[in-house]
Amino acid sequence: MSGDVVPADVFKLAMRRLAAGVTIITTCHDGERCGLTATAVCSLSADPPQLLVCVNRSSQAHDIIKRGANLCVNLLARRHKALAARFAGQKKGVVGEERFRAGKWTTLKTTAPALDDALASFDCVVRETVESSTHTIFIGNVVEVRLRAEGHPLLYAGGSYAGLQVIADRRKRTAVTAVTRRPAKRRRAKRA
Amino acid sequence: MSGDVVPADVFKLAMRRLAAGVTIITTCHDGERCGLTATAVCSLSADPPQLLVCVNRSSQAHDIIKRGANLCVNLLARRHKALAARFAGQKKGVVGEERFRAGKWTTLKTTAPALDDALASFDCVVRETVESSTHTIFIGNVVEVRLRAEGHPLLYAGGSYAGLQVIADRRKRTAVTAVTRRPAKRRRAKRA
Repeated sequence: MSGDVVPADVFKLAMRRLAAGVTIITTCHDGERCGLTATAVCSLSADPPQLLVCVNRSSQAHDIIKRGANLCVNLLARRHKALAARFAGQKKGVVGEERFRAGKWTTLKTTAPALDDALASFDCVVRETVESSTHTIFIGNVVEVRLRAEGHPLLYAGGSYAGLQVIADRRKRTAVTAVTRRPAKRRRAKRA
Repeated sequence: MSGDVVPADVFKLAMRRLAAGVTIITTCHDGERCGLTATAVCSLSADPPQLLVCVNRSSQAHDIIKRGANLCVNLLARRHKALAARFAGQKKGVVGEERFRAGKWTTLKTTAPALDDALASFDCVVRETVESSTHTIFIGNVVEVRLRAEGHPLLYAGGSYAGLQVIADRRKRTAVTAVTRRPAKRRRAKRA
């Protein structure tokens, strides 16, 4: 078989179909914070607790993390859609420290900003970096986790933000939080 | 700050909140096929087209890919929920070749099985491996892509399978495929 790869546009078109949870990855160096919206985040191992993120080498955060700063991965909820757009650079000219004027940010163990009402925040010490042509994979050891009350995760698929919908399970009630309001309507109907 | 990591159970609990698209990763060695359900899949770069997958070192597929076999990443649709469970080992004793008795499987450029009606299949030549304690990261160059008609992606979050739900956008109609049947009902209503 040939080792030739597919054209970039074909790859991108197909990758739009990979639905993923939306996160904001943050870092901080000498008191200056920066961050970016990312979906390329994976759990790597539970023991030791490690995750990986793929960060574009053209981003400001990339160079800071590369030089040794830590990072924090914040899992976004549906209510964070505007914040996701802001950290994705969709508000022109809003970069670096300016992005943090929206949302409430604190820190955990490292100096990387943690979004106060994220579904979960993973505070990481970067253990290893693997370089690719356009992106770097950062592997982080998770040194602190902050969990908030469960909420509706924000997803990205097909070039748009989306929410999660329960698939009914005949055997048991599923634990995934429903975003549809139908069950509430059914309850009202029974009461009436 | 301390370099101490969080306990594995705390990490796992928080990671349940990272919603992700469900895939089946396959490989083939000497005509023997094997595969596993996975959510730890990321796009790495578009030029060259590369993705990464994190595969548990205890899986049969891991050792085969590690020894030099290629792999195929198949993005699942909602209709593949039972297939996802089968390849996740939820049907006891169904391993290796036996798993492929469900679904229609073909091949693309490599010998790794491609699910005929996956939302998209990414046929990859493994370019690099990065070892972690329990998992290995395989970085693949994408040598062929097969796209099928758009469908509803299968997601996994909070320990359950789920679907995608559109978030209404006031400015434009979103491109994400809705899983609710409401629009169809509206169309019927108009015709009536």
